[in-house]
Amino acid sequence: MNDLVSRFSAVRSHTAALAAPLSAEDCCVQSMPDASPVKWHLAHTTWFFETFVLEPNEPGFEPFHPAFRVLFNSYYNGVGARHPRPQRGLLTRPALSDVLAYRANVEQRMQAVLARQADNAALQSLVELGLQHEQQHQELLLTDVLHLLSCNPLAPAYRDALPPVAASAQAPDWLEFSGGLCEIGHGGSGFAFDNELPRHTTYLAPYALCSRLVSQAEFAAFVADGGYRRPELWLAEGWDWRAAQQIEHPLYWRHAPGGGWKVFGLYGEQPLDPQAPVTQLSYFEAEACARWAGARLPTEAEWEAAAASRGGTGTQTAEGSGLRDLFGSVWQWTQSSYAPYPGFRAAEGAVGEYNGKFMVNQYVLRGSSCATPPGHARLSYRNFFPATARWQFSGLRLARDL
Amino acid sequence: MNDLVSRFSAVRSHTAALAAPLSAEDCCVQSMPDASPVKWHLAHTTWFFETFVLEPNEPGFEPFHPAFRVLFNSYYNGVGARHPRPQRGLLTRPALSDVLAYRANVEQRMQAVLARQADNAALQSLVELGLQHEQQHQELLLTDVLHLLSCNPLAPAYRDALPPVAASAQAPDWLEFSGGLCEIGHGGSGFAFDNELPRHTTYLAPYALCSRLVSQAEFAAFVADGGYRRPELWLAEGWDWRAAQQIEHPLYWRHAPGGGWKVFGLYGEQPLDPQAPVTQLSYFEAEACARWAGARLPTEAEWEAAAASRGGTGTQTAEGSGLRDLFGSVWQWTQSSYAPYPGFRAAEGAVGEYNGKFMVNQYVLRGSSCATPPGHARLSYRNFFPATARWQFSGLRLARDL
Amino acid sequence: MNDLVSRFSAVRSHTAALAAPLSAEDCCVQSMPDASPVKWHLAHTTWFFETFVLEPNEPGFEPFHPAFRVLFNSYYNGVGARHPRPQRGLLTRPALSDVLAYRANVEQRMQAVLARQADNAALQSLVELGLQHEQQHQELLLTDVLHLLSCNPLAPAYRDALPPVAASAQAPDWLEFSGGLCEIGHGGSGFAFDNELPRHTTYLAPYALCSRLVSQAEFAAFVADGGYRRPELWLAEGWDWRAAQQIEHPLYWRHAPGGGWKVFGLYGEQPLDPQAPVTQLSYFEAEACARWAGARLPTEAEWEAAAASRGGTGTQTAEGSGLRDLFGSVWQWTQSSYAPYPGFRAAEGAVGEYNGKFMVNQYVLRGSSCATPPGHARLSYRNFFPATARWQFSGLRLARDL
Amino acid sequence: MNDLVSRFSAVRSHTAALAAPLSAEDCCVQSMPDASPVKWHLAHTTWFFETFVLEPNEPGFEPFHPAFRVLFNSYYNGVGARHPRPQRGLLTRPALSDVLAYRANVEQRMQAVLARQADNAALQSLVELGLQHEQQHQELLLTDVLHLLSCNPLAPAYRDALPPVAASAQAPDWLEFSGGLCEIGHGGSGFAFDNELPRHTTYLAPYALCSRLVSQAEFAAFVADGGYRRPELWLAEGWDWRAAQQIEHPLYWRHAPGGGWKVFGLYGEQPLDPQAPVTQLSYFEAEACARWAGARLPTEAEWEAAAASRGGTGTQTAEGSGLRDLFGSVWQWTQSSYAPYPGFRAAEGAVGEYNGKFMVNQYVLRGSSCATPPGHARLSYRNFFPATARWQFSGLRLARDL
Repeated sequence: MNDLVSRFSAVRSHTAALAAPLSAEDCCVQSMPDASPVKWHLAHTTWFFETFVLEPNEPGFEPFHPAFRVLFNSYYNGVGARHPRPQRGLLTRPALSDVLAYRANVEQRMQAVLARQADNAALQSLVELGLQHEQQHQELLLTDVLHLLSCNPLAPAYRDALPPVAASAQAPDWLEFSGGLCEIGHGGSGFAFDNELPRHTTYLAPYALCSRLVSQAEFAAFVADGGYRRPELWLAEGWDWRAAQQIEHPLYWRHAPGGGWKVFGLYGEQPLDPQAPVTQLSYFEAEACARWAGARLPTEAEWEAAAASRGGTGTQTAEGSGLRDLFGSVWQWTQSSYAPYPGFRAAEGAVGEYNGKFMVNQYVLRGSSCATPPGHARLSYRNFFPATARWQFSGLRLARDL
Repeated sequence: MNDLVSRFSAVRSHTAALAAPLSAEDCCVQSMPDASPVKWHLAHTTWFFETFVLEPNEPGFEPFHPAFRVLFNSYYNGVGARHPRPQRGLLTRPALSDVLAYRANVEQRMQAVLARQADNAALQSLVELGLQHEQQHQELLLTDVLHLLSCNPLAPAYRDALPPVAASAQAPDWLEFSGGLCEIGHGGSGFAFDNELPRHTTYLAPYALCSRLVSQAEFAAFVADGGYRRPELWLAEGWDWRAAQQIEHPLYWRHAPGGGWKVFGLYGEQPLDPQAPVTQLSYFEAEACARWAGARLPTEAEWEAAAASRGGTGTQTAEGSGLRDLFGSVWQWTQSSYAPYPGFRAAEGAVGEYNGKFMVNQYVLRGSSCATPPGHARLSYRNFFPATARWQFSGLRLARDL
Repeated sequence: MNDLVSRFSAVRSHTAALAAPLSAEDCCVQSMPDASPVKWHLAHTTWFFETFVLEPNEPGFEPFHPAFRVLFNSYYNGVGARHPRPQRGLLTRPALSDVLAYRANVEQRMQAVLARQADNAALQSLVELGLQHEQQHQELLLTDVLHLLSCNPLAPAYRDALPPVAASAQAPDWLEFSGGLCEIGHGGSGFAFDNELPRHTTYLAPYALCSRLVSQAEFAAFVADGGYRRPELWLAEGWDWRAAQQIEHPLYWRHAPGGGWKVFGLYGEQPLDPQAPVTQLSYFEAEACARWAGARLPTEAEWEAAAASRGGTGTQTAEGSGLRDLFGSVWQWTQSSYAPYPGFRAAEGAVGEYNGKFMVNQYVLRGSSCATPPGHARLSYRNFFPATARWQFSGLRLARDL
Repeated sequence: MNDLVSRFSAVRSHTAALAAPLSAEDCCVQSMPDASPVKWHLAHTTWFFETFVLEPNEPGFEPFHPAFRVLFNSYYNGVGARHPRPQRGLLTRPALSDVLAYRANVEQRMQAVLARQADNAALQSLVELGLQHEQQHQELLLTDVLHLLSCNPLAPAYRDALPPVAASAQAPDWLEFSGGLCEIGHGGSGFAFDNELPRHTTYLAPYALCSRLVSQAEFAAFVADGGYRRPELWLAEGWDWRAAQQIEHPLYWRHAPGGGWKVFGLYGEQPLDPQAPVTQLSYFEAEACARWAGARLPTEAEWEAAAASRGGTGTQTAEGSGLRDLFGSVWQWTQSSYAPYPGFRAAEGAVGEYNGKFMVNQYVLRGSSCATPPGHARLSYRNFFPATARWQFSGLRLARDL
């Protein structure tokens, strides 16, 4: 339990640290309906603890502010009304300073509850869910504010430092997997979201995965080869979407004055880094690029089974013998529609709305990204977005049949 | 080859017969972008033969009308430009009589080509694809014109006859299947679409399927129990769609003056038939109804494996021992996203656009419906529509885990 | 009264004659929400007589078909429910033949009522309103079906004959008017719509009008001079609309293969006729062209006062001394917003909805067009459309301050 | 010229004072495309002086920040590119503090230019235009931030003080005017916008105006009498708009818990004040209310002629003998479409875009409101908004024919 107390502090502090470089103005504005203001992330993650942990566990519970119950509910019908998502950016009040006070207040009360109920396993489990939830919002906070900054003609950088130097080029290897019966899904005793359960058997035909991610140079070759002008490379719905939105390149790519590309990111506008993985791709773009390369996207079962057998964790994988950059670089689109695993059962109560109700018209991403908090991802982790989502740290790893 | 010649005549005549009860006005109008005019179906199925069979096989080929090449191309980028889909209903010219003349002309030329090339297997294969394609449009012709008629306050009936008398009530049975490794996909020598290939192994956990389809009475109970008012029964995207569209019941259900429901269909407005299967459901409605019933939709692999082992063909299944109404009643939504089978490869050339490029954001339906031409469906057949499609003969069969 | 009987026959026959060259399909389809199907015009003009004349004046009145009361009501809230305007084209039933039977039935009953009530001045006045109303729909029938035909890549002609030969070029004259106090509005004893009343005094500053209409050659020069690319020539709202709609030329102008323009019209696709007046202009296009020409649009009072003092009627004006083509060529946009005259009072009852409720966000056109039935227009006639309406026979005559 | 220098300081300070009660967050957010952020108003009014005064008059001119040239251009095509209006709220950078620095910098340079060119009449005239422009934005700043605050469920007040106590009830008088020839438009030597010119003759029929504005109590009676449910009271376009937007009462009216109404305003949520003028009405609502009252809206000429002859300035008009609340309470909708006066000529250059290009599909409001800076309005002042604009301090004064 002491571990949980200190972990609670660490996760909460990390969220605040992510917001620290931003002004109150930066934290308030919502740049599109799919993105939330930073201030809203700060408040909603606090609301989660207040609603699901403090309210049932704190004697004489009183909400910090009655209106926050509605303002900072995201999508839990079981908890009552909620402020409309596209209007989150209109909330100039409460001020950022009020939301920080809300955070401090709930943190203090959480510490008290945690101290008092050191043996309550159900409570600890809910707190852990709240922390995992907050870590998910840490990544969204970054991708959402990055989208906001990308809309600004001044091209402001989230981070002032220089971006990390890209690793030198590595030739892609095709790693082969024999398939057959295998188990996927979360199996251990640690935390997992309900959508990773139950661990179950599946059958895979033989396949190969590329040892590394598709690079920015490779994606630039796709663009130069008319990738965004050739309907035969695209899913029909993707092609229509691309045409209607007049999409000609990844969301954050910009034509450099003398030719070539600049790429906007957390470090501001930088020259395209040929060795770095391409990112901020929609499913449609990733899928078209894979077809152009004579390959395809992996299924999530292929990805997980391969990663389990030959993956290296993080970027420090030894000597190129395995799947590099599974974690910590960019999320990898799979061709798998987000669907319940066989035997899936949503949790009871309002937290049961966490995952299951989104299992339609979304596609699974695997791995993790440079914006994912360290320690948050795992082999069985299932991230998911609609096929048109372009503002995440999402790229691709090629697969093919054997 | 004689078989193919007579089959060609039979399929073509059947299409014309379906249009026979309709006026030129009925055949011309497009009631929504997703539906095509009957006249367009009549012309497009003819265009398919002219473009893919006559053009490469007829000496000195000349198109019946140069403009028809564009007007009646549906979605084949490989064949050139095409008239925008939402504007198909603006084509009052060519007149219905001109389109019927187009049909007769192409049929005559097809007979000549078929007679001349009796040994050309590739040609025969293309003709068979054209006939299967035309049969798919026979069903769409009916569902599209039904949608048009449903928009008319006069509630005109497509068929003047009385509707078939509903079978008497049957108690639903739960049939259990042990799962394990099984094969799905088309395996025989007969015709199949590319999306049914290749036949492949998959692994299934134990499951049960209901012996019969969900009935109109059962769906009426779902509605009466607040099924359209309870967000906890719906996928989140479905709920938002339902709310935005103000959907409160199936598309063709109408409040009867004295209470209860009338249902619009090919026989016009009829009283709800409690024993008949509910139809014209979207995926979202079917999925919510299954959840309300404490069950779920089957996967397509579950459906196919079960149908292969214990199905009866058509409605004449013997004495309740198996899965009834697999075919010929209503298509059955599955929870499976429409995706390529492992090892899927689209056909070469423009006909390769037939299926593969639609494999995103759609859900598979299995079986067949009362509007499917006899002999068209099979165990491995994969129909597919977006989760919001409400105008097909689409219902559901319940499944559950064991 | 005999006059009215024969006038009734003549007007009704003329409507039928306008529809005669069209097929049932042509008469059924609606090409945009602002346009109605020909069949609907045929039925609605009949509904007007049935509702406003027969119902209160025919003993034992029974409607021809109860549903037609709703289907063919245009916008009269005082008469009850109505079929939604954008869905008029979905009514494949009643068939065209049924609507023609409806016309014949109401005509027969109207003749009986007219014979019986030869002395009923109020009735006669309503019948006259109905005939004027039907004449307005005669013009709309033509402009609406022309829009439909313009959407067809086959470019079908409404009329098979050759178009009239354009008159030879005439140099434009500027005719000067001293202004001052003048009277406008309908003053005589003949028929006028309520929006032309009351005749009233207005004050005009001195001004000049051009003796002839802006020609197609002049408008082509405007286009060639970047007229559609220079925001300084446009009203701000017009410019934004133009940009959003990607409008680069008049609605029915098409690039001719070898350069220059073809113009679609009632005679199909014809070469641009330099001397003929430009037509099918929106207010925004007309206004921009006038500014480009260093002039402006006239006000409706300027137009009417000038026409009263120096106009020639129709095209046969003598020797260039006056305002040519006031009538019978193209409607002429004025800069006047459609507004009630001082002292305007709408008629009592449902027919009071005829004009007054549209007096906002529309602009007045004066004169008449080649599609206006002979004898329908007059000096005080006020036609009106929104500033974006592009499918009418609408052009412009230049004005300027003195 | 000393006057201009001190007037410059006074106007600029007043703008800053209006923003003073607001946080940086409040100043950054844009609540709808029609409203601009406060920060944008602060910057744009500064941009106006920088662009139109400093750039041509300051030796060695350098812009404060090159990007601001585009970011804070509103709609002047003649000045180059501009940031899209609906994205003004995405500019979290420059920060509010940077914009305040921009203001200070331009003010200092303006003082220098004004000192150096004390005899430059053209310059002084431009500066005066810039000050009048800034005063217009002072009002918009208030109406825009009020709209933003109105979107916040916390209902925050712009001003903490209590609202002014409403005057006691006064019976409405009908003041009669004989009409005839009269002059309207700006005639004196003081400042006027180009749209108030030239002063010109017009002719008016006899009419009456109500001595006072329509009150909140009267508008509440309109609502209670089904004013928002009776199509016969509305212009057709207004009715369709009302229905589509589901409008049932003025924008800032809210149902009070125990019945009756609360009204949101600069002082937060307050009980409806029966004697106070109704405000935040669209043209459509004002026009419908007038019809319900058996009256109509005045024309702008009627308003100006009446105000010139019997108006009192401001609220302190003596003993009920004249038109009260012409100024300083709420803008008064007229039935006049915003159109050029006879002989109107826009100014040369980019400032010519100030007014003329908006003269379509807008309606004129006369007088001024409680949010108009003192001294800004005059008898000939023409404010204008689209018929659907609901967020201004806009009400109505009744008129009728004699």
